[in-house]
Amino acid sequence: MPRPHIKILVIGKTKHSYLQEGIQDYLRRLKHYAQVEMVEIRAKRASSKLSDEEITRQEARLFAGHINPSDYVIALDRQGQMCDSIEMARALQKQGEQNPNPVAFLIGGELGLSPRLVDRANEVWSFSKLTFSHDMVRLILVEQLYRGFTIMAGEKYHK
Amino acid sequence: MPRPHIKILVIGKTKHSYLQEGIQDYLRRLKHYAQVEMVEIRAKRASSKLSDEEITRQEARLFAGHINPSDYVIALDRQGQMCDSIEMARALQKQGEQNPNPVAFLIGGELGLSPRLVDRANEVWSFSKLTFSHDMVRLILVEQLYRGFTIMAGEKYHK
Repeated sequence: MPRPHIKILVIGKTKHSYLQEGIQDYLRRLKHYAQVEMVEIRAKRASSKLSDEEITRQEARLFAGHINPSDYVIALDRQGQMCDSIEMARALQKQGEQNPNPVAFLIGGELGLSPRLVDRANEVWSFSKLTFSHDMVRLILVEQLYRGFTIMAGEKYHK
Repeated sequence: MPRPHIKILVIGKTKHSYLQEGIQDYLRRLKHYAQVEMVEIRAKRASSKLSDEEITRQEARLFAGHINPSDYVIALDRQGQMCDSIEMARALQKQGEQNPNPVAFLIGGELGLSPRLVDRANEVWSFSKLTFSHDMVRLILVEQLYRGFTIMAGEKYHK
């Protein structure tokens, strides 16, 4: 099986340094299993007069610049499909076996993802009914990816 | 309305310093709205020969020492009721109006909560179908409490 390539596309920098530290820790640990990169897309807030809809549309264009047609796109959205850690690991494994192309995870900004991006996604996953900050979602995703790879490798971490 | 009193009972210290930093940050911010304390119960691992069941039973006894009969107990368990951030805030508010006694949140250790504790709980909440580390659950809980209090106060944080 080729080494999986996972791109995590997010809007803006991680605000809290402690979350950034946790994210970096998991990205480092994930190197053992896959090529995983987090791309912090810089949103241009040229005008503060933009409506929420205009902002998410602008963000969608910025995201699109980092998504290739062959990428397998998984959008994270509160309305998506809920799965447990093992189902998530299996889905990633199955995808990797069937399709060698990169997986791109999309995490929206404060306003969530634009419907256009959700439509482009091959899958839409939800971690919780709760509203998490988009910074916190980053940490949860990398932790779950790490947990997923250890589950697939039959290693001790998951409990 | 009296100042809410919330006890968060957990097993053992928070392992990762970055999560500890985030938890402390939210505990500090929560002081504005309520008396919130996190009690790290020290589990005695006298013998490593204990079965999983014996460990959770021992943990249940340790938890019990910190729970008063009048406490309103909310256990966090993956099998519990899922709610969104607004439902969670409303539930806390309603509880505070009807009952001035402390709310005790229980977060199990690696093996989860013993069925005895889940039975004692007045409510059982689930944050996600995913398995989070018990350390991560602490951060998620204090963040959701903070989010909840700002929602109830009609302040800007929740989006």
